[in-house]
Order: sequence, then structure tokens, then C-alpha cells
Amino acid sequence: MSDMTRVALDAMGGDNAPGEIVKGAVDAVNSRKEIEVILTGKEEVIKQELAKYTYPEEQIRIVDATEVIETAEPPVMAIRRKKDSSIVKAMKLVKEGEADAFVSAGSSGAVLVGGQVIVGRIKGIERAPLAPLIPTAKGVSLLIDCGANVDARPSHLVQFAKMGSIYMEHVIGVKKPKVGIVNIGAEEEKGNALVKETFPMLKACEDIDFIGSVEARDIPSGVADVIVCEAFVGNVILKLYEGLGATLISKIKGGMMSTLRSKIGALLVKPALKETLKTFDASEYGGAPLLGLNGLVVKTHGSSTAKEVKNSILQCVQFHEQKINEKIQEGLKEQRASDEENKDV
Amino acid sequence: MSDMTRVALDAMGGDNAPGEIVKGAVDAVNSRKEIEVILTGKEEVIKQELAKYTYPEEQIRIVDATEVIETAEPPVMAIRRKKDSSIVKAMKLVKEGEADAFVSAGSSGAVLVGGQVIVGRIKGIERAPLAPLIPTAKGVSLLIDCGANVDARPSHLVQFAKMGSIYMEHVIGVKKPKVGIVNIGAEEEKGNALVKETFPMLKACEDIDFIGSVEARDIPSGVADVIVCEAFVGNVILKLYEGLGATLISKIKGGMMSTLRSKIGALLVKPALKETLKTFDASEYGGAPLLGLNGLVVKTHGSSTAKEVKNSILQCVQFHEQKINEKIQEGLKEQRASDEENKDV
Repeated sequence: MSDMTRVALDAMGGDNAPGEIVKGAVDAVNSRKEIEVILTGKEEVIKQELAKYTYPEEQIRIVDATEVIETAEPPVMAIRRKKDSSIVKAMKLVKEGEADAFVSAGSSGAVLVGGQVIVGRIKGIERAPLAPLIPTAKGVSLLIDCGANVDARPSHLVQFAKMGSIYMEHVIGVKKPKVGIVNIGAEEEKGNALVKETFPMLKACEDIDFIGSVEARDIPSGVADVIVCEAFVGNVILKLYEGLGATLISKIKGGMMSTLRSKIGALLVKPALKETLKTFDASEYGGAPLLGLNGLVVKTHGSSTAKEVKNSILQCVQFHEQKINEKIQEGLKEQRASDEENKDV
Repeated sequence: MSDMTRVALDAMGGDNAPGEIVKGAVDAVNSRKEIEVILTGKEEVIKQELAKYTYPEEQIRIVDATEVIETAEPPVMAIRRKKDSSIVKAMKLVKEGEADAFVSAGSSGAVLVGGQVIVGRIKGIERAPLAPLIPTAKGVSLLIDCGANVDARPSHLVQFAKMGSIYMEHVIGVKKPKVGIVNIGAEEEKGNALVKETFPMLKACEDIDFIGSVEARDIPSGVADVIVCEAFVGNVILKLYEGLGATLISKIKGGMMSTLRSKIGALLVKPALKETLKTFDASEYGGAPLLGLNGLVVKTHGSSTAKEVKNSILQCVQFHEQKINEKIQEGLKEQRASDEENKDV
């Protein structure tokens, strides 16, 4: 059954668990034959949810897990102590090769820590970046890293660039993705110490289409397909995207309610506007992959519904069928020799 | 004449120089008696512009400068070589005590470099941050630093917090301004090395109202009055504000044109919407002060019109009358002793 993709799914994680998570699993297996979903969590609860649906039963199974890691828990401690949690059990399935991928809408911290500690990194990968898709005027861009690897080093950013490029090309389908590094000016000599050191290294990479510096101003217009940055900066970009979008939209709604004339206009404009704003909502793009691990780990939004869960599962199928990890490993071959020399990681 | 504020104004800087710059000077002196504007630049050109207006002649004078620093020039070189440029001449006036403040819509780089090199920092101030106002749902917040001090150290950020707090209170008029540090989570243990080290130092400051970490998501809602960050992060926030705003607005306009119904609605909504969006345009808030120098240096938007130039000049008056630099120096008194011990700056 080498063409099956086996996805471990955290049935207990997220605001809408287990209902929407289980429904997402059912929708995924109903849409594709070549998926097996392994739901981890409280068996009785999951069984009750599954009983509501019709689906090919051989495509879903349950692995019982009695504990749940809450969002507020310190992640390192939680991963260490809650051995029987839905997240730890699912990640173990990936580690042991019983699953190809893991999807969770639960604690971001636990998913990031567990990914590194339990699933483990591909040999040669120094850090595993979290890489969400963000909406742009042209479609989507991959923002890599906006996870937990703060204070990254140049060699990390180079690996992010390569992994991000492979992902955008083979999972999202962008031919020859343009890779840019977030900077505070367009010139090569601009930037902080990290960017200045990373820039020539990216320029020297033959396997990516490096377009140079990208100013934050140009990110929303879609100037690059892969946006490389250190995690602190990436997190600021992702969060500001969400916050600024929300504030602007509420300002606009307020403005439309300010006069009778504009109130009438607002009624007419509403449906078209709603559709437009949906395309610019970062949460619409579902799962953010944690790249560079021995198996795919996908963190979906905490507020995910069945639709996003299903999309994240399908993303795992694409990842598996396109043999992304094999491609990442190939890309690392040349680099590995030099990594051996820098073993202080 | 100790209650006059003398503002050196770069007549040659910006997209609309010298026309709009000179007009801004005229508007400023026509609105207030206690301002003297010293226009630096090509005397003949400035005279021709001034001849168009009526104004109290004793309030405007010209200092001839034959050279102009272009935006594209490398700033350090330009400041060193173009001794007879409008920027260098104006900054020398501030340094020599002939002017209290300097306003320019010209090269940001030259203004930042010239501020540090020519005007010079207040004794005890380690770095001079650029601190623009950004629009929020509640009004404006001061983003400090988004200038050239990349790779800042914790002691720099602490000074930024104090200077920003004094500026917001006495120039913008926010009582007991709330100070937050940009972080990737709300908890004290979160963040990169810089933030983790700075956090307890800010917490220990008794002269500011430190509210802790601010996630980028919460900046647009106006959660803090003073937003402290390292310049690379600050620049990303400022530029993303501009870029995301512009992209979202063009998406919304496009969305409104998608159906006949929404087109009619758009016509009705337009005036109210325009007014709303104006309040959320970062460029509306005029000049960004470069704080901590021996005299105020204000960088206004390159596209500044007379209105913004006038507002920047009035900002200098407020700064001078409120004796902001004296207040900054007082705030530094306690700190100065410990600065003496760390002379490796």
C-alpha cells in the first residue's frame, strides 16, 4: 500500500474539537480513496462522533489517548509529561513510521516542540521552520519561518529558503518560485547582521530563484513566492497581517455606517466585499507545515472547522505523493559535507 | 527671544521641493508668531518661491546651500562630501545652537546619519531612534525605533522606551502613556534573546507605565501608546502597515467593482470610506522625530505637501516649548552613572 497516505489526526485539539475535527477526517476519506486517517484521542468520544457519519470504515481508525494538552500549558513540560496525550501519541505514530503526517489544531507550542523532539529533524536539517501561506494580491506566499526558531543563524535561513522553494513548487504548484529575504531596504548592503551574512549565501544557491531583498511594504503585493525571515520577524509579519486586516475592516464597516447615504451603499456592497475580504484572510489558507522533519507535521488554525481539517489532510497527501522530504534530502546532499564541519549546532 | 522656536528647514528635500516646502514654511509663520524658519537651499530658487506669498518677513530667513543630497546617494558619503548641501548646512545650524530643530522631507538615510554625526547625541544617549506615529483604532501610537539602529542592545531599548514615553506625554498629549515591547507572545518568558533580556529591565523602570509584551496582532487596535522594538522589526511593522493597507484597499475597490449592484453601492459609500481610510494612512501623521539628539530632527514623508511641512514645524514648537530634551536629560540622570561603567558603546 505504498501509495496510501496515512495521516495521524489530533482529534482533541482546537476550539471545535472533537466535532469538526472528526467531521474533517470523514470528509477527507470520503473524497479520496488513498487516505487513511488515524484519529488520536479519547476513543469513546471519537466513536460517538464517527457514528454520525457514513464513510469507508477501513480508511479511519482510532488510537486511544486519554490525555489532552491544553493551549495554555508550557509546551516542553506538556510534551514530556503527557505521554498519553493525543498530540504525543500521534507524533509517535509518525516517528515509528506508522503515519506519514500529523495534523493538529491544538497547542502551537506543543506541536512545534513535539515536532522537533518526537518526530525529529531530517539528518542535516538544523532547524524545522513553521511556514504558513499568507494571502497576497496575486495569490499566496509562503512565509518561512514564523515558528519557534528565534535568533536563527544564516545557515538556517538558507535551508528555509531551499525547503520553502521545494514546498511552493511541488505542493502549491508554483513553477520556479521566487525567493526573497525580508529586509529593511532593497540594496545588498542594507540590513541587520543576520541578513547581511545570509544575503550572499542565498545569492550563491543555484537551486533556488533568489530575487534579493524584499521590503515588508512589498510582501502584500506578492513580490515573492517564498519569503525568508527569522522567526521573530516572521511572527510579527503574520500577526500584523491578521491584526491590521481586522482593524482596517472594522474601520471600513464603521465608516460605511456613518451616513444614511453610505448605509444604503453598504447594503449593496456587502456581498461583493465579503467575498473579496475572504480571499485576504490568512486563516483561510489552513494548515502551516513544519518543514524538515521525518514526516510532515501540519499546524492548522485553532479555530479550524471541518473544511480546514480536510484541506490540511489533502495537503499531507500532496506532500507525500510529491515525495517532498526526499526532495529536501536530495537538496541537502551537497550541503551535508559542510554541515559536518560545523557541528556546534 | 527665548520663547521663539527656530526651525531649520531643508527647502530642497522631498518630491515636492522646493514649492510645497516653502509654502509650508509660510503657512507655519502665518499661523504662529513665535516661530522663525531658516530655509536652507539654493537662495535664488527659494526667493522666487517666497515672492509668491505674504508673510511676516522677520520670521523667515534663507541660508544659501548650493548642493542637494539625492535620495539614492549613499548617506554616509553624501554627508561627508556635500558640505554645502541643504541638509548638512541646516544640521550645522542646529549643532551650533542657531536653530532648535531641523525638518527635512529629503533622504532618510542622510537625515539619520547627519543627525548622529552632525547634530550629535545627548550625553548619555547611546542611540538616536526614529519614532513615527502610526494610526490605530484608538488614535496613534509611537513606534520606536524604526530607524537605522539595527541589532540594538537591551540598554538602547530601555532608553527608547523612556524617550518615547516623554514624547507621547508632552508632545502628543497622552497622559501616562502605556509602553509595550513587541514580542511573539504575551508571556514574560517568550521572545528572542534581545526581548528576554530587555523585558525585566523595562519592568524595573519606575518612570514609565510598562504594560509588558505586545503581539503584532494587537498593535493596530491601539493596545499601547509607545511600541518599543529594535529597528529591523520596527521597519517591518511600519512598511507592512503601508503595504498591507494599500493592497487591502485596492482589493476592496476591486471587489466593489465586481457586480452592478456593488458598483452602485460603491458610489454611495465612497465619500464616507475615503474619510475613514484617511485616518488610517500612516503618511497622514507627518514627521517622525529622531529622538535623543542635541536638538530635534524631524523626518517628514518624501511626498510631503505644505500641510505636512507646516505640521512638522508646529511639532518642533511643541517639542521646544515642552522642553523635551531637558526632560530626556533629567530622565537619564540616574542612568548616567551606570552608563559610565559601560563605555564600550
